Amino acid sequence: MDFNFLDILIKKRIGERLNPEEIEFIIKNYSNGSIPDYQFAAFLMAVYYKGMDFEETTNLTRAMLYSGKTLDLSEIKMPKIDKHSTGGVGDKVSLILAPLVASCGVCVPMISGRSLGHTGGTLDKLESIPGFRTNLSLNEFKIQLKKINLGIIGQTEEIAPADKKIYSLRDVTGTVDSIPLITASIMSKKLAEDLDGLVLDVKFGNGAFMESYKKAKELANYLVKIGKKFKVKTIAILTDMNSPSGDCIGNSLEIIESIECLKGNGPEDIMEITLTLSEHILKLARIRGGRELLLKKIKNGEALNKFKEMITYQGGNPDVTEDYDLLPVAKNRTKFSAPKTGYINNIDTFKLGILATKLGAGRLKKDDKIDHSCGFKIYKKTGDFIKKGETIIEIYSDNNSIVKEVLSGLSPVFSIKSEPPKKGRLIRDIIR
Amino acid sequence: MDFNFLDILIKKRIGERLNPEEIEFIIKNYSNGSIPDYQFAAFLMAVYYKGMDFEETTNLTRAMLYSGKTLDLSEIKMPKIDKHSTGGVGDKVSLILAPLVASCGVCVPMISGRSLGHTGGTLDKLESIPGFRTNLSLNEFKIQLKKINLGIIGQTEEIAPADKKIYSLRDVTGTVDSIPLITASIMSKKLAEDLDGLVLDVKFGNGAFMESYKKAKELANYLVKIGKKFKVKTIAILTDMNSPSGDCIGNSLEIIESIECLKGNGPEDIMEITLTLSEHILKLARIRGGRELLLKKIKNGEALNKFKEMITYQGGNPDVTEDYDLLPVAKNRTKFSAPKTGYINNIDTFKLGILATKLGAGRLKKDDKIDHSCGFKIYKKTGDFIKKGETIIEIYSDNNSIVKEVLSGLSPVFSIKSEPPKKGRLIRDIIR
Repeated sequence: MDFNFLDILIKKRIGERLNPEEIEFIIKNYSNGSIPDYQFAAFLMAVYYKGMDFEETTNLTRAMLYSGKTLDLSEIKMPKIDKHSTGGVGDKVSLILAPLVASCGVCVPMISGRSLGHTGGTLDKLESIPGFRTNLSLNEFKIQLKKINLGIIGQTEEIAPADKKIYSLRDVTGTVDSIPLITASIMSKKLAEDLDGLVLDVKFGNGAFMESYKKAKELANYLVKIGKKFKVKTIAILTDMNSPSGDCIGNSLEIIESIECLKGNGPEDIMEITLTLSEHILKLARIRGGRELLLKKIKNGEALNKFKEMITYQGGNPDVTEDYDLLPVAKNRTKFSAPKTGYINNIDTFKLGILATKLGAGRLKKDDKIDHSCGFKIYKKTGDFIKKGETIIEIYSDNNSIVKEVLSGLSPVFSIKSEPPKKGRLIRDIIR
Repeated sequence: MDFNFLDILIKKRIGERLNPEEIEFIIKNYSNGSIPDYQFAAFLMAVYYKGMDFEETTNLTRAMLYSGKTLDLSEIKMPKIDKHSTGGVGDKVSLILAPLVASCGVCVPMISGRSLGHTGGTLDKLESIPGFRTNLSLNEFKIQLKKINLGIIGQTEEIAPADKKIYSLRDVTGTVDSIPLITASIMSKKLAEDLDGLVLDVKFGNGAFMESYKKAKELANYLVKIGKKFKVKTIAILTDMNSPSGDCIGNSLEIIESIECLKGNGPEDIMEITLTLSEHILKLARIRGGRELLLKKIKNGEALNKFKEMITYQGGNPDVTEDYDLLPVAKNRTKFSAPKTGYINNIDTFKLGILATKLGAGRLKKDDKIDHSCGFKIYKKTGDFIKKGETIIEIYSDNNSIVKEVLSGLSPVFSIKSEPPKKGRLIRDIIR
C-alpha cells in the first residue's frame, strides 16, 4: 500500500490508532532508510505521549520481529524456554538460571543485551571470562543449542534489525521510557528465538528503568499478553529493585558471584528470584520436581557443569569456575565506611549503578569501553545494622583518580537511620 | 554555558520550563548544526504536546530573532508599522493595505511569505507582475524604504536564519500547529524589521491554519503580548476565514483584484478588513483622519500611485495597474454551476484552497513551481441566493487535464440549502 509517512505521523500525533498496514509501512520504510531519522524521531515522541493500544503494539512487535530472521529450533525436541529481565543493578540471575534449568532438561536459547546507563549487561559479564565469545552467528548458535541445549549470545545483525535501528534513535531522543516501544523492542527479539515459553523479570524501584510499581505492572501485562498472542507461554514476576541484586556489582565480580550461586553459596535475594523464575520455567516445560529438583542440580554440581560446558562451547576457559585468579579482578580495593551507627534505611540503587558505570563497569554511551575488572562488593544492605566505621561497601578499581571521585559520590547513596526500615517483599506479584 | 541537549529535551518532555540559557543554547546549537535534526525533531514534538509558557516563548523568540541580522531604520523618522496575517484563502489584504497606509505617511517595511499548503503568499502574487523582484538585500530594502517608505520583500538569509531552519523541520515532522512555535516564528521575523507598531490579522475557520476560534484567540494573545514585551505597539484582530477573502483566488487574479481595491472597486469583505487594520495602523502611528483619510487616499489615487511606485522600485512594470493584459492570466475559463436552487450555506474554504494549489496557484511542497496565471473567480459566496445552473465559480487554467480534475473536486466545496445561513461577524474580536 502507498502511504504518506507525514499523514501517519499526524494521525498518531492527534492520538488515533494506526492500522496494521500503516505500522508495517513505517517499520519497513524506516528500516530501509526511506523514512529519515528526523521524521521517525518526531513519530517516536508522538508515541511516547499518545501511546499505542494492545493491537497496535502487537502489530509493531510483529513488524519488528519480521524485519529480520528468526531461529528455527524445530529439530530440538526439548521445551525451549528463555528468561528476560528489564534490567537492574547487580542483576546476574540469567547467568545462574540459564545453566540451572538447562541442567534440568530445558533448552535455553538466550539472546541477551549489554550494559547501558546504570545497569549491567549479561554479555559484558560473560566477556570477562577469557576467550568467551558472545557474537556467534545464528547458525553456530543453533548447532550449540542442539548439542548442549544452552547458549547466551548477543543480538546479531540478523535478529530484529528494525529494533536495533529504532533503539539507537530512542536512546538519543528521550523516547526510551514508553511501554509500547519497550514491549515491541523486548518481544521482537525474544519471539525470534522460536520459544515455547518465556519468563520475565520486570523490575520496579529506584534501581530499575521503571521506578513506579504501577508502570512496571502495566509493562508486565503488555509483555505477557503479547507473548500469549504469539502463542508463547509467558509469565512475568514483578521484583523490587530498591536495593542491588546480590552483593557484587561489576563484570568479573558478578561472574564469581554467579559461580558461587551455582555452587550453592548464593546470597538469599539473588537465589530467591533465580529459583522462583526457574520453578516457573519447569512448570511451563512440564518438568516435575520444582524447587527440590533445582536445589539438587546445584548440590550435585550438574548446574555448574552446564555452565562450564557453555563456557567451553563459546570459546572460554572453564577453569575460571575453580580458579578465580583467571578472571580480571582489580587488585586495588578501597573501603567506604559507615559515617554513623544505625540501620541501612535506603540505598540509592540508581546512583550506585551510575557510580559502577563511572568506574568502568558499564556504558553511558554505546561506544564506551568496559573495564571488566572493576566494581563494588557490598557488605551491608537495606535493613542491616552497622556500626560507625564498619565497611559498607568496597570499591574494586586500579584507577586511583576514578576511585577518588567515586568514593566522594558514595556518601549520598546509603542513608542510615536509628530505626530499621520496613522491608517490602522482593517478589511483589506474578502476571500470567 | 555547557548543556547536554538530551537533558534539555527530557526536561521539556516531562513538561518542565526551560530557562533562558537553555533556550539560547538549543537555538544556537541547532542553528550551527551541533544538534542533529533527529534530536531537534523530538524536541519540537515535545514542545507540541507540553507547550511553552509566555516567558519561554519570549526567550525562544529572542534567540531566533538574534540568530540573524536586524534592520536599523533609525534614520527614517516616519512611524514604522507592519501588518501580518496568519494566512487564508484569497487573502490579499497586505497588497492593498501596505500602499494605502504608506500613502498616509507610514513607513511599511514588510517582510512577507510564500504560498504553502492551501494558502497563497504575498510574494508569489507580486511576482506575477512582470519583472517584480522580491529578493532585495537588506541594504537595498533599506535604501528603498528611505526613498518611498514602502517595500515588500521575502525573508532573506540574513533575517532569523534559525526560524528558516526550524520551520523546514516543523513542516515535515507534523509540528507546525503549535502556538509557541508559531508565535516565535512570526515574531522573530517581524521584530527584525525595527518596528514601532505591528497589526496582526489572526484568522480562524475552515480556511485558516487554526480552525478553532479559541486557539486562534490564544495565538493572538501570545503574539500581542510578545510584541509589547519587545516594545512594539501591537494589536491583533480575529477574522472569520470560513469563506474566501474577496472574489478571486490565484496570483495574477489577486493582483488585479488588489488594484481594483486600490481604485475603490473592492469587494466588501476585503475592504472591511483592510480598512479596519489600516485605521489601527494610523492610530498606532498617531496619524489623524481615520477611515475618512484612507478613503480619500483611495479616491484621489494616491494609494494606487504608492503601489505603482513600489512596483517601479522593485523592478516591475507599473503599467499593469492600467493594462491587465500585461499580467499572465489563463485564457481558458471553465464554469462550475449550481446543481440546485437555494442559498450558499457553506464553502469548504480549505478544500477550495487545496484545489487552487492543485491548479498551480500554490505549493504543496516547498519546491513546487507556481503557475501565476491560474486560479478561481467566485461569483456567489456564503449567504447568496443562486438558481440552478447559474455560475458559482469559474476556473482559470490553460491545463485541461487539471481543470477536469479540479472541476470534479468542486462539488463538495459548496453546500446549498433552502434557507439562508446565519452569518457570523467577519471581524470577531480585537486583542490589544
